[in-house]
Amino acid sequence: MGTTEKQNEVYLEPEYAADLASIRKARKRIETFIDTTPVLKSSFIDELSGRKLFFKAENFQKGGAFKIRGACNAVFSLPDEVAKRGILTHSSGNHAAAVALAAKLRDIPAHIVIPKNAPQCKIDNVNQYGGRIVWADSSIESREAIAAKVQEETGAVMIHPFNDGNVISGQGTIALEFLEQVPELEAIVVPISGGGLISGIALGAKGIKPTIKIFGAEPYGASDAAQSKATNTIVRNVSPRTLADGLRAQLGDLTWPVIRDLVDDIIVVNDKDIVKGMKMLYESLKIVVEPSGAIGLAAVLSKQSASHPDVAECRSIGIVLSGGNVDLDPLWDYMNCACQT
Amino acid sequence: MGTTEKQNEVYLEPEYAADLASIRKARKRIETFIDTTPVLKSSFIDELSGRKLFFKAENFQKGGAFKIRGACNAVFSLPDEVAKRGILTHSSGNHAAAVALAAKLRDIPAHIVIPKNAPQCKIDNVNQYGGRIVWADSSIESREAIAAKVQEETGAVMIHPFNDGNVISGQGTIALEFLEQVPELEAIVVPISGGGLISGIALGAKGIKPTIKIFGAEPYGASDAAQSKATNTIVRNVSPRTLADGLRAQLGDLTWPVIRDLVDDIIVVNDKDIVKGMKMLYESLKIVVEPSGAIGLAAVLSKQSASHPDVAECRSIGIVLSGGNVDLDPLWDYMNCACQT
Repeated sequence: MGTTEKQNEVYLEPEYAADLASIRKARKRIETFIDTTPVLKSSFIDELSGRKLFFKAENFQKGGAFKIRGACNAVFSLPDEVAKRGILTHSSGNHAAAVALAAKLRDIPAHIVIPKNAPQCKIDNVNQYGGRIVWADSSIESREAIAAKVQEETGAVMIHPFNDGNVISGQGTIALEFLEQVPELEAIVVPISGGGLISGIALGAKGIKPTIKIFGAEPYGASDAAQSKATNTIVRNVSPRTLADGLRAQLGDLTWPVIRDLVDDIIVVNDKDIVKGMKMLYESLKIVVEPSGAIGLAAVLSKQSASHPDVAECRSIGIVLSGGNVDLDPLWDYMNCACQT
Repeated sequence: MGTTEKQNEVYLEPEYAADLASIRKARKRIETFIDTTPVLKSSFIDELSGRKLFFKAENFQKGGAFKIRGACNAVFSLPDEVAKRGILTHSSGNHAAAVALAAKLRDIPAHIVIPKNAPQCKIDNVNQYGGRIVWADSSIESREAIAAKVQEETGAVMIHPFNDGNVISGQGTIALEFLEQVPELEAIVVPISGGGLISGIALGAKGIKPTIKIFGAEPYGASDAAQSKATNTIVRNVSPRTLADGLRAQLGDLTWPVIRDLVDDIIVVNDKDIVKGMKMLYESLKIVVEPSGAIGLAAVLSKQSASHPDVAECRSIGIVLSGGNVDLDPLWDYMNCACQT
């Protein structure tokens, strides 16, 4: 980055769990462990949307999702004597595999509490990285109780999936890469679940380029962040109902203030539009993205965006494809039936 | 490339329809119209296969397949007064879209004879590039008769999908890129149908690096190339039976001599193994590849390769992922049923 950009940087007051400085530190800490993911383009989708869209392909990230950024930053921030006791998390998704992989990279044990209904591909990923799986029921109470028990027994350090300053800083490294790759970005659209990803990106991107807009993309059946913005207080996410298994969490007390203050708006889309977005990414970009990862494109192509003054005026929009871990078994079943030899 | 490499180049006698010089000319002719596709790696698949595999991602090529290389080279080789009459092909697959796109790039008409049973995604691609579709029955006789009629009416030039020196030279440009990207390659595995792709790659790669091995990958239900090699004469491909819709053609008189002389061996795999290869590419590399495009990985992971002395000794193998145009409707049907909003 040039001097001019540096002069324009805004060092936000440290009122949040992370800031541009902590995100820059995170980047140095994790850079040897993660990949700088490519930015993809599709002239077909550009024509369709009437603007330039830039896709940050975190589905190509190690472990198949952005989560390794935050997990690595948290794990490598621990002092040796603490780290050696191991780490612990409870997650049904990409964070579980990321914690297992980060522990493997630091050569310490990882205990992963997983609900029995987690998608098989995400369980496979934890196994692949050598994490120790501890089973729980699907309720958050069961997961928390079992995690507490494991923590008591092992002394392992809990790595929260999003409500953690180091995790938020790690996810924010996406903003630094993305703005270096595409300085012209006027907005970034980010999937929103617990809010770790969008908090990190908002703090990083607005720290470097205060004029940039940050929009959340959230499924209709788990739209607690949109409701929280509308009512200016954290709304509980009771019985989330969405195909996007990665977007069912609810905001934490560390992510909410960032979303309240720095996220310009949240675009809510239904599951059918998420599937349409996935189809377009598979067909035009030839990439595999999970439902949660495709929601950003669905949001940009939605009616809500078309009539949204702030979104409509942006000519260059970045979209974070957050992950690519999805069970495609129905496709393989079909293909296997179509085999002729 | 350095001087040493140039000194080691073998300029093959011009006994074939293409050679290293024609491939180099093709590269200059088409370079502004095509993409240099990336080479992808997977540490997971490397561990599984016990060697280093390099995937040349032609599924990311313009039009979703390598075919635009040969089509562009053929179309831009035509003198202006010939080109303006338009071009013509009959194809159920990626070549059809490639010819339509190449014609669009040169701003001339394209007539595409397509059998009624062609995959929808491939028909959509022809439409997307503005090609004029002329319907035929699925038999090769019907396609040829209708193509002859269109040619008589329009004076358009036929661009054969593979039995054409310019097309072979265009496909051969993959070898030049691939060996620049990964000079250490000891072998390249290439899907084989009519033989245009593997002929071009064999001529290009062995022209630059005579020690490199070239292996074909062919489906069990359309293994005419393997049978031709075994009997040393072109074997007809009667009633091909394979899921890999791009691999049902039979060798031509221009591709056969190259395959006979320069392809080291052909590995035959069944459709179920092709699906396993696809699954691995989708899950590990997060990319969309069609069945014909995944056969190279299936071949490398096959039992035949494990016991094949020439394949087994190669530590660095290049695999050409030829295309990514595949109807995924069964997946979208399933996903739409799983939608909750």
